[in-house]
Amino acid sequence: MARDAVTLTLVDYNEKRLTEKRIAFIDECFRYKNQKSVTWVHLDSLKNTTLLKSIGDGFGLHPLVLENILDADQRAKIEDYGDYLFLNFSGFAFDKAKRFLTTPISAVFGPKFVITFQEGGEDFFAPVREQIRNAKSRIRKEGPDYLVYAMLDALVDQYFTLVDQLEENVELLEDRLTRTSSQKSLQNLHTLKRQLTHLRRAVAPLRDVLSNLERGSTRIIKKSTIVYMRDVYEHMIHLIETIETLRESLSGALDVYLSRESARTNEIMKVLTVISTVFIPLTFITGVYGMNFHFMPEIPSVYGYPAALLLMLSIGGFMLLYFHRKKWV
Amino acid sequence: MARDAVTLTLVDYNEKRLTEKRIAFIDECFRYKNQKSVTWVHLDSLKNTTLLKSIGDGFGLHPLVLENILDADQRAKIEDYGDYLFLNFSGFAFDKAKRFLTTPISAVFGPKFVITFQEGGEDFFAPVREQIRNAKSRIRKEGPDYLVYAMLDALVDQYFTLVDQLEENVELLEDRLTRTSSQKSLQNLHTLKRQLTHLRRAVAPLRDVLSNLERGSTRIIKKSTIVYMRDVYEHMIHLIETIETLRESLSGALDVYLSRESARTNEIMKVLTVISTVFIPLTFITGVYGMNFHFMPEIPSVYGYPAALLLMLSIGGFMLLYFHRKKWV
Amino acid sequence: MARDAVTLTLVDYNEKRLTEKRIAFIDECFRYKNQKSVTWVHLDSLKNTTLLKSIGDGFGLHPLVLENILDADQRAKIEDYGDYLFLNFSGFAFDKAKRFLTTPISAVFGPKFVITFQEGGEDFFAPVREQIRNAKSRIRKEGPDYLVYAMLDALVDQYFTLVDQLEENVELLEDRLTRTSSQKSLQNLHTLKRQLTHLRRAVAPLRDVLSNLERGSTRIIKKSTIVYMRDVYEHMIHLIETIETLRESLSGALDVYLSRESARTNEIMKVLTVISTVFIPLTFITGVYGMNFHFMPEIPSVYGYPAALLLMLSIGGFMLLYFHRKKWV
Amino acid sequence: MARDAVTLTLVDYNEKRLTEKRIAFIDECFRYKNQKSVTWVHLDSLKNTTLLKSIGDGFGLHPLVLENILDADQRAKIEDYGDYLFLNFSGFAFDKAKRFLTTPISAVFGPKFVITFQEGGEDFFAPVREQIRNAKSRIRKEGPDYLVYAMLDALVDQYFTLVDQLEENVELLEDRLTRTSSQKSLQNLHTLKRQLTHLRRAVAPLRDVLSNLERGSTRIIKKSTIVYMRDVYEHMIHLIETIETLRESLSGALDVYLSRESARTNEIMKVLTVISTVFIPLTFITGVYGMNFHFMPEIPSVYGYPAALLLMLSIGGFMLLYFHRKKWV
Amino acid sequence: MARDAVTLTLVDYNEKRLTEKRIAFIDECFRYKNQKSVTWVHLDSLKNTTLLKSIGDGFGLHPLVLENILDADQRAKIEDYGDYLFLNFSGFAFDKAKRFLTTPISAVFGPKFVITFQEGGEDFFAPVREQIRNAKSRIRKEGPDYLVYAMLDALVDQYFTLVDQLEENVELLEDRLTRTSSQKSLQNLHTLKRQLTHLRRAVAPLRDVLSNLERGSTRIIKKSTIVYMRDVYEHMIHLIETIETLRESLSGALDVYLSRESARTNEIMKVLTVISTVFIPLTFITGVYGMNFHFMPEIPSVYGYPAALLLMLSIGGFMLLYFHRKKWV
Repeated sequence: MARDAVTLTLVDYNEKRLTEKRIAFIDECFRYKNQKSVTWVHLDSLKNTTLLKSIGDGFGLHPLVLENILDADQRAKIEDYGDYLFLNFSGFAFDKAKRFLTTPISAVFGPKFVITFQEGGEDFFAPVREQIRNAKSRIRKEGPDYLVYAMLDALVDQYFTLVDQLEENVELLEDRLTRTSSQKSLQNLHTLKRQLTHLRRAVAPLRDVLSNLERGSTRIIKKSTIVYMRDVYEHMIHLIETIETLRESLSGALDVYLSRESARTNEIMKVLTVISTVFIPLTFITGVYGMNFHFMPEIPSVYGYPAALLLMLSIGGFMLLYFHRKKWV
Repeated sequence: MARDAVTLTLVDYNEKRLTEKRIAFIDECFRYKNQKSVTWVHLDSLKNTTLLKSIGDGFGLHPLVLENILDADQRAKIEDYGDYLFLNFSGFAFDKAKRFLTTPISAVFGPKFVITFQEGGEDFFAPVREQIRNAKSRIRKEGPDYLVYAMLDALVDQYFTLVDQLEENVELLEDRLTRTSSQKSLQNLHTLKRQLTHLRRAVAPLRDVLSNLERGSTRIIKKSTIVYMRDVYEHMIHLIETIETLRESLSGALDVYLSRESARTNEIMKVLTVISTVFIPLTFITGVYGMNFHFMPEIPSVYGYPAALLLMLSIGGFMLLYFHRKKWV
Repeated sequence: MARDAVTLTLVDYNEKRLTEKRIAFIDECFRYKNQKSVTWVHLDSLKNTTLLKSIGDGFGLHPLVLENILDADQRAKIEDYGDYLFLNFSGFAFDKAKRFLTTPISAVFGPKFVITFQEGGEDFFAPVREQIRNAKSRIRKEGPDYLVYAMLDALVDQYFTLVDQLEENVELLEDRLTRTSSQKSLQNLHTLKRQLTHLRRAVAPLRDVLSNLERGSTRIIKKSTIVYMRDVYEHMIHLIETIETLRESLSGALDVYLSRESARTNEIMKVLTVISTVFIPLTFITGVYGMNFHFMPEIPSVYGYPAALLLMLSIGGFMLLYFHRKKWV
Repeated sequence: MARDAVTLTLVDYNEKRLTEKRIAFIDECFRYKNQKSVTWVHLDSLKNTTLLKSIGDGFGLHPLVLENILDADQRAKIEDYGDYLFLNFSGFAFDKAKRFLTTPISAVFGPKFVITFQEGGEDFFAPVREQIRNAKSRIRKEGPDYLVYAMLDALVDQYFTLVDQLEENVELLEDRLTRTSSQKSLQNLHTLKRQLTHLRRAVAPLRDVLSNLERGSTRIIKKSTIVYMRDVYEHMIHLIETIETLRESLSGALDVYLSRESARTNEIMKVLTVISTVFIPLTFITGVYGMNFHFMPEIPSVYGYPAALLLMLSIGGFMLLYFHRKKWV
Repeated sequence: MARDAVTLTLVDYNEKRLTEKRIAFIDECFRYKNQKSVTWVHLDSLKNTTLLKSIGDGFGLHPLVLENILDADQRAKIEDYGDYLFLNFSGFAFDKAKRFLTTPISAVFGPKFVITFQEGGEDFFAPVREQIRNAKSRIRKEGPDYLVYAMLDALVDQYFTLVDQLEENVELLEDRLTRTSSQKSLQNLHTLKRQLTHLRRAVAPLRDVLSNLERGSTRIIKKSTIVYMRDVYEHMIHLIETIETLRESLSGALDVYLSRESARTNEIMKVLTVISTVFIPLTFITGVYGMNFHFMPEIPSVYGYPAALLLMLSIGGFMLLYFHRKKWV
């Protein structure tokens, strides 16, 4: 059986003992399948389809489950195949260029085992492994349904870390938008908005999955675990509301920014126009006395020049006063 | 057992007697637990986790309940653990700088006791204590479910006080926006809008909690108390509608303000442009007679100057008349 | 027992007889309570709380009912207390200054009696009294549930009168907005919009009350009366749709007005700017020939002046032609 | 019994025979009531209330039914009175001035008869009469429920004719709006939008009526007819979606128009402003050399004039080049 | 029996054998109807109504089914006639001019047969035929319900191809809109938006059809097939969400474009206005010294000219400095 760079990690535990190792052949894990312990097999690549096939055969999975595992572009979903549940969700992380990386993760879990499938991306289940290593933790006393809860909890915590970063960005941006008026901040705002929309869309179907688990509609999940599922479900609702709040904050910030910008532009145009408007009649008067008619009584008069200056001064002053009283400047 | 600055207040009452005191050790209250009376323990800090742990053990609380009590950033929720209910809600108050302060409060209540947990903030339950002290009040004849009702009622009343203040601010602002056109009022409007949005978001999940209580889906709440729960639920609905109305008022005020501002700017620009437009052709005419051509028949004429003035006067007058008739000025 | 300016009106009727009188003491009406007739007591003031208390005792009302009656600021609601129903709704009227007056009305009705509470305001139930006085009318053959129907019907009819007035105002305003462009009409539009929003908000919970009655979820309402409740419910739906239509009409009128105003302003600015633009190059030319250089070949020429005029005329004409062809003027 | 210009049309049919005639007295149709045939009575006026009363008595109708028939301003509705159904809907048509005419129509139908009431307006049921006259058509083999289906089908077909006309208008308008920019087209757009809103509002409650019929919640409608009701219901849904699409098309066309108009205005203002901006510095230079200072070295120089012209030419050219490079012109 | 250019394709298969041929007369396929195999008859034209009639008779179809097949302008729907299901959906494709072509397709399927009706358009079911030809494929082992699933799956895959093309267009357009500001891109954006709206509207009712199939409300679909229906339903949901995301992307792109365009126009107008505003007071000064008054002390002075130039320079410089400090330029 080929392995093709796929790492198979086996974790098998109950209250008393814990086996954690990399295995070379999938057959090895079938041994653990029927023991009184929780068996968790994790695949970090989907490229080896023969391996997937033999897992499918070994655990008796429906052909559609394998198809779904291989289809990367999926909504989060839960499907009850009677003997086992199929779960599909996504892990999110920022890459170095601050862009979203979406990692689709699939999980199959029955009354004694959990198999998780992931193609690349971060190790989202590291905190779960930590818990399992702690012999006194609750997870060691519970079955695979609690393991799935722990996974979902780790995932949602990861989402919160992400949303906290986005929240920070939103606050920074809000602050910058009230101080300066750069086109770049606006661009950032739209990028941030798109990220939030993207996240909400990706996260919303997972809420339905959790709601399904929390309602306890499947017998694979024990009654005592349902209260935990409800807890992670509540976290999820809170997450979605936080995303909504951030989106509204952005919209609000944009509205404030746009109205301030528009008010500022109006203000500038008004001032500039007032300046032009004051000088245009004055220039007209200079034009009048710049005409070359031979017979203009004011021209040869000694008082002509000062009178003209005075006239212009008073017209200008009057206009400014009028504009000021009208609160135009 | 350490106490670490946590104040434990014990209130134990039935129709005939009332004990109200600060207690040093939590064990003291376990004594009251099995008596035929309502036992209310209030903690004003969550910092002492050993204390929380011993409360959890003493009253047999699920580990998730303690986790939820310690998690400050939560949505209001109600959870039925069979023997007791867990409630999570928030108290709101303005600080001196007129900003919101949110105080998360948790409550656990069973058939004979109520425990409330609060980290800092105002004493939101002071009116409840007042009621209990009055030996003839209804609360003394009823069980812990009525006590919870009294608490929620006090809380919702507190919300109404807050919303009344916001309403006043909204009205003040609306008034100011119709009179002046300051950028600052606009800033205030957006702050107020955000506060309302924040409040609505915080309050909306509590409505679901109350709806849950009002439907009487749990046996811990007696039938006779449900009618009271329904009453506080109706108050809640009314509160939310009031918040919605305020938000709409603000949007309306903003629309009026913006359309008035825009009309005003248009008006100013129009007037200024009309002034320029009237003088520009006149200035052109003065330009014509300011040209230095040797052969210009009008120049040496005695009637040149008055004729030019008359021409300009009539052009200007005609333009103003035309603009006036077109209702441009 | 004090009376404190409260008028108690008693109407007691069945198919055969009718008693209608003002009573001094509430005890008088208890006499009628157990007879085979419908007893309707109407209070026109809530100021006398001792009176309210004795009514509560006499008819066995829940303490919350009395609290609700006294709380003026309420949403319309219906509450089923088993033996009787509690209803809360509002009457609306315009005062002389064309502002809304909201009058909260409460009603308690059981299998044999109806008590209505109202603080000031119009006599909204006058048409009901008229019906009762008519010995042949249906109301005389039916029980208190039909009386409540008649009251609600009278109320909804009153709402329609109000909405008809608002409709008239909307049509007047729409007409005015298409003819003139006054800032005052805009102000009126916003006032009208707020009134409609206010009315819709006040009326919406009453729809739920009527829906509740129409579904016949309470045994106090007879099957034969439900068809009437359904009828008044349908009227209510129609009323709300009419209000919605009016709101949309106003929004439409505002859109038309704003787009027309904006088009008009653009038109004016365009024309004014075209005028300036045509004259500015011409003024430049006059400037050129107004320069005082000693050596300018055109200046001493006999053809200088007419040539310059011709040049300016053709430039101006060409520009106008160009603008006209581009459809800018 | 008065007749007062009301035309009573009686159609009575079964698979074998058909009676179609105008009757003078309503009593005539009671004869047909108990025969094994479908009896359809149509009234083309509601003015004769004595006639309505005797129909109500003859067919045992509830007083509210008669009230509803007489109330012209109604929402489409269906009411189940046990022995018969009451239906209320509207026919629509354009008058010659292209305005909507709404004709309220009421129908009562029981297990053997259908009575339709209409005040003026078109004969919306002409196609139904045609079907009945055809002895081989399905309608002749079925009961009054199929007759009601045929009526509703005819009505919805009539709506489609209307919507098709509106669709044509919308397309014409969209086309005109992309070519010209007349204020009148905008006015038409708003009229069309209002017509569509009006139609949607009038048609929406009929959808609920049809949904009610299609669900077969009443025993008067036979199972075999329900499939037909479902068909006309589907048509209705399609109609409403078409109206929605048209409304969205209009909104889209308006957006395109407004953004194009705004872009056009901006373009014009930009070009005009560029012209002014180029000439204003040039005019300033002519102003400088138009000053009368005695000692200006450039003035007596032979090269003064050509140098000034060159200067102005290069400034103007440079500005145009700069504006062009910045893509402002 | 006429054939009128209709091609009848018969596919009959079970696990062991496959018949695929064009048939001349519909009677031929009736032979296959009662065999233990899946019979699929495909018609590529609806023009021959006699043929349709004989199919209807041969398979016992309800008259409404035939009507629905012939009515081209339909919403996607599913109707359960007990013995068979009737399905209506649409195939989409781009024509060469990049416009949508909608091809309505009808399908009738019972426990042993599937009949599909299509008027022109692409061969949307080619991938299904491919699957059938593969003797080892699952489809050969399953009944007509799986065949219908395969058809719907092929159809939804086709939709995805289409949406992928639209997505590409959207991305191209987004890119172009951030770089240039052509009116044509805006036109494209609106066309694309309309296409997306159109597609969403056409696809939405098919989601309901699939939801209906997935819920397994009809006994014709076997339990084992429901899981496949659920899969294609999930694909559909994903498709609709993708369309929604594209629509939001377009709206976002439009917002960014418009705000950038508006900022750009404001910027240009501001710069141009600043230029005018700086030169207008300077031109006024040249006007002053261009006046012809005989007694102007500055005129004969040697320092007059340089002083005036200096004055103008410093005024201009001061204004630019002021504007710069105010961040107007």
